Amino acid sequence: MNTGNKLYSKAKELYPICRSLTGRGVEDTLSILKRDIPEMIIQKAPTGAKAFDWKVPEEWEINDAFIADESGKRVVDFKAHNLHIMGYSEPVDKVITFEELDKHLYSLPDQPDAIPYVTSYYKKHWGFCVTEKQRDILRAGSDKKYHVFIESRLFNGYLTYGECFIKGETDREVLFSTYICHPSMANNEISGPVLAAALAEYIRSAPRRLSYRFLFLPETIGAVVYLSRNLDKLKRNVIAGFMLTCLGDGRAYSYLASRYGNTLADKVAKHALKYTTPGYISYSFLERGSDERQFCSPGVDLPVCSIMRSKYCEYPEYHTSLDDMSLISPEGLEGGYNVMRRCVDILENRKVYKNTVLCEPQMGNRGLYPAISIRNNGLSVRNMMNVLAYTDGTNDLEDISDITGIPAAELTEITDKLEDAGLIYLL
Amino acid sequence: MNTGNKLYSKAKELYPICRSLTGRGVEDTLSILKRDIPEMIIQKAPTGAKAFDWKVPEEWEINDAFIADESGKRVVDFKAHNLHIMGYSEPVDKVITFEELDKHLYSLPDQPDAIPYVTSYYKKHWGFCVTEKQRDILRAGSDKKYHVFIESRLFNGYLTYGECFIKGETDREVLFSTYICHPSMANNEISGPVLAAALAEYIRSAPRRLSYRFLFLPETIGAVVYLSRNLDKLKRNVIAGFMLTCLGDGRAYSYLASRYGNTLADKVAKHALKYTTPGYISYSFLERGSDERQFCSPGVDLPVCSIMRSKYCEYPEYHTSLDDMSLISPEGLEGGYNVMRRCVDILENRKVYKNTVLCEPQMGNRGLYPAISIRNNGLSVRNMMNVLAYTDGTNDLEDISDITGIPAAELTEITDKLEDAGLIYLL
Amino acid sequence: MNTGNKLYSKAKELYPICRSLTGRGVEDTLSILKRDIPEMIIQKAPTGAKAFDWKVPEEWEINDAFIADESGKRVVDFKAHNLHIMGYSEPVDKVITFEELDKHLYSLPDQPDAIPYVTSYYKKHWGFCVTEKQRDILRAGSDKKYHVFIESRLFNGYLTYGECFIKGETDREVLFSTYICHPSMANNEISGPVLAAALAEYIRSAPRRLSYRFLFLPETIGAVVYLSRNLDKLKRNVIAGFMLTCLGDGRAYSYLASRYGNTLADKVAKHALKYTTPGYISYSFLERGSDERQFCSPGVDLPVCSIMRSKYCEYPEYHTSLDDMSLISPEGLEGGYNVMRRCVDILENRKVYKNTVLCEPQMGNRGLYPAISIRNNGLSVRNMMNVLAYTDGTNDLEDISDITGIPAAELTEITDKLEDAGLIYLL
Repeated sequence: MNTGNKLYSKAKELYPICRSLTGRGVEDTLSILKRDIPEMIIQKAPTGAKAFDWKVPEEWEINDAFIADESGKRVVDFKAHNLHIMGYSEPVDKVITFEELDKHLYSLPDQPDAIPYVTSYYKKHWGFCVTEKQRDILRAGSDKKYHVFIESRLFNGYLTYGECFIKGETDREVLFSTYICHPSMANNEISGPVLAAALAEYIRSAPRRLSYRFLFLPETIGAVVYLSRNLDKLKRNVIAGFMLTCLGDGRAYSYLASRYGNTLADKVAKHALKYTTPGYISYSFLERGSDERQFCSPGVDLPVCSIMRSKYCEYPEYHTSLDDMSLISPEGLEGGYNVMRRCVDILENRKVYKNTVLCEPQMGNRGLYPAISIRNNGLSVRNMMNVLAYTDGTNDLEDISDITGIPAAELTEITDKLEDAGLIYLL
Repeated sequence: MNTGNKLYSKAKELYPICRSLTGRGVEDTLSILKRDIPEMIIQKAPTGAKAFDWKVPEEWEINDAFIADESGKRVVDFKAHNLHIMGYSEPVDKVITFEELDKHLYSLPDQPDAIPYVTSYYKKHWGFCVTEKQRDILRAGSDKKYHVFIESRLFNGYLTYGECFIKGETDREVLFSTYICHPSMANNEISGPVLAAALAEYIRSAPRRLSYRFLFLPETIGAVVYLSRNLDKLKRNVIAGFMLTCLGDGRAYSYLASRYGNTLADKVAKHALKYTTPGYISYSFLERGSDERQFCSPGVDLPVCSIMRSKYCEYPEYHTSLDDMSLISPEGLEGGYNVMRRCVDILENRKVYKNTVLCEPQMGNRGLYPAISIRNNGLSVRNMMNVLAYTDGTNDLEDISDITGIPAAELTEITDKLEDAGLIYLL
Repeated sequence: MNTGNKLYSKAKELYPICRSLTGRGVEDTLSILKRDIPEMIIQKAPTGAKAFDWKVPEEWEINDAFIADESGKRVVDFKAHNLHIMGYSEPVDKVITFEELDKHLYSLPDQPDAIPYVTSYYKKHWGFCVTEKQRDILRAGSDKKYHVFIESRLFNGYLTYGECFIKGETDREVLFSTYICHPSMANNEISGPVLAAALAEYIRSAPRRLSYRFLFLPETIGAVVYLSRNLDKLKRNVIAGFMLTCLGDGRAYSYLASRYGNTLADKVAKHALKYTTPGYISYSFLERGSDERQFCSPGVDLPVCSIMRSKYCEYPEYHTSLDDMSLISPEGLEGGYNVMRRCVDILENRKVYKNTVLCEPQMGNRGLYPAISIRNNGLSVRNMMNVLAYTDGTNDLEDISDITGIPAAELTEITDKLEDAGLIYLL
């Protein structure tokens, strides 16, 4: 099975789970991921735990929920789609008029077939998310009464998240963060953890110079809790980080800059995209929307940016039931995976070299230069000499690629050859 | 009476006075201005006093001047227009031929109805400034003789200037400088002091964080004298300064940069113009012409730039009798006043904030964020979060406005709200 | 005789000599140049001497070489054109088939009338460079045998180069480097030393603030040897340097940047070209090809760039017999000479001034300003005041020219006047 199909198949397994900020859905998701990432450690923070300006909320359990008509027929049923229940709804069990029910309904008039995704984490509330068509049906029976039933529980429990650290030769580390708190949505949820697992596998496949850290966090509160516990360590070691989100559809490639757009992560992301999808869409930090909001916040200042396919907020299916398994594809996921893997490769291959001799070396002696000098020694010799001109201890290979126009892969070949010949050494 | 009319009415009062570098015209002008600016202190420097490379010239008094024909009829009469006399003309009383007279006449062939503005401050001389038509009439009688009469006096006296300091909470100060040495001209003279007086009144209308200094100087020598006496103080305290000149006509908005164009004054001026008159004309320091020549000179290096309507040298009526009360208007003056007032507001509101918490704050708890999360939280929430992302202690609000695209007024509302909520504090 | 004709006539004298990396051709060339540059010192480095990563090769002597047919007729004759022999060919004297001979022939199918320039300095080899037509003739007799004869000698001898230092008032020096190792080629060889000699004469014609160093080096190995012996001195004193190469044809003006394009030499070169040939071609260091490869290498880091007419590698006659005396012209050489001389003038006139007084000086007192002030004091006064605004001790005259738009020549007139008036002084 090729990479795209593997990713899609894993996504299919995770898609149906009813996730939220806390609760069984998160735990089930992490358990499934841990099968692929045995290094993953499951961490917990209790309800009420403080994290910077935040407190961990109560844990939420949801078992059943429906709106039934007078005949007892379930018109809206949580078991049909987990988006039907507003996240963190408190329990309810009563018979009410449509008028009263209507205040607890969420739908999208412009997208009559879509169930919107709505939550109320920090204020006690209950609600049902329905298609515009379902709302019309409920309204049609507005002379009747409806039985609204939510079997949920809010209690002192835990916020759960996963962390996976893969040690490399050095302590310098690359951070990948993704979230695991949305119910059944595909591009803007499942694509992230699925890619993270695949990247972890890729990293494990060879010895690495750098260390890698993967975070599987409930969005926002999970990132805040994690940072409140680990900020010093991250600030000391992380040289580049990437949000893994919205990486599954096939429509676009997007890049969202870090706060000032000037970190190594930004450089690597743009470099990775430049040679494959030069037409990628570039977003400023003003358009952010995931945990880079925390990672890049003032004082936290981690070098984190995002590479996405169609960016959250920017595609019509975003945060609705239309963001389903048909929106993402093996090809879409594989494209996202490839560009993230390229970031890993660029970071692993990121090297700053310095020349061992003054002036140009005698290349001919080393078989690196044609013995007979005739016009136009050819591109490969010219490229090699151009690399030697800029391996002056101040440029990394990305810089040299920018200066010389030599793509990263070829550049690595050249520096390997020059290093073997003893003409440059790694700083 | 609205602002524009008040400004215009004050301009009308000052316009007829015959000002020059020294003498009663300057003193009368300062007296009238002092009615509106009671804080103003009148300063004097005696003839011969040294100021850097300069010496204060003799004081000049002018009482009457005319050219009369043989019948005794005044063909050119100082009492008809004070521009008729070349500034600093020495006394004369003789009957001469047209040929001899002609050497002492100044007119503008291209603008036959305009009297030019001419001075000879530093070389003894006398002359009459006439319209090209008057010159033609004088020439027509060239077989006759003319009586030239100038009742003037050059004597050891004083250079006079006004200074007004309005203390704010801090010693950091904003400098406004204007000149009071041109005879009856409107845009390129009266608009400046009139606006300065109105700005002083505006500043006095509320408690201010910053201190403000207004200078009413005879151009060039006045600025040189003032700087020779006060440079250390200004260098210590002035954070931004503006020349007030040519602020009365309705044709254009102009900005003239400081020497390197990189001071806080330049930033504020461009910011003030950007959101109201994006099509303003931008001039480099190479096109300068007023006392920024001294304020920005090497070694003086004060952060001074200019905002103008039609810039001196650039409009046809400049330095002629056509620069009269019909050239400026209540609307023109009010426009100039508004943009300068905006500079004050920007400077007063110029604040560098720093966040009090790491990561994003919990906005919902504070009623600053909708409790129920549904797609698109709206622009105001987004703007607020974007402000919080850049209040990192390195940006002032102008910077944040440039980064986020939020206009200054809205930005202040947001930071006030955030400061009230204890989420940011003023550095 | 005008400059162009003198240059061309000297080029004609040097053109026929059979130069190579070492040997009599280099020595003869230096002897002829020394007639014009008596200060020149001839230096030698013995075969096998080490220089950074290199060793001085054996010396090569070539006396005769030909390919004769069975009748003894010389089909290819070194005496007809010295390009016919591959540089550093070892001796040979045998009768061989065309098939065997063919492996030792070099020609250019696309330029059937051109003899290519080919060398094999660092690997023992022999060969003949021929026109495509000659190759065809040889091939036509491929059933016959050919007598190949090369009377050459490779032996422990010397690498020879010339150095000329002209001391100025200060130790700060300007470097000019050219090469003397190509056989009969005009633009890409002779134009360089000929211009160097003329520049030395120009520099000697007047007292100079700066010192000047001219190097006449066999390319690459000569530069490496020279640098290995003199690097510290050069790094201490050289403020700008220029390669003198390809300066004789009339087609283009070219500039090739130093490694990062940010040295004083780059600035001067661009300034020299800007006001005379604004359409010059600009090449990055990636397109380099002469001894700037050594001078600008990492760790050597000398501020060296190149001004050329048609750049090596970029014109069709390059490195062939078509680069002959008809390719260059008196006009072409004179143009090249003039722009290099302008670089000298700019460097000699490169001055950083500082004002002696605060605020603008009283120019009228000094006769530098019209006594009577009327609109538009004219460009010359404005230019003078603009210069005074930027002689603040941080800008050299090139900077001031860039800021004010005043060409270098006029700027020097102005600063001379201001210096005479005691208003600025040289730092």
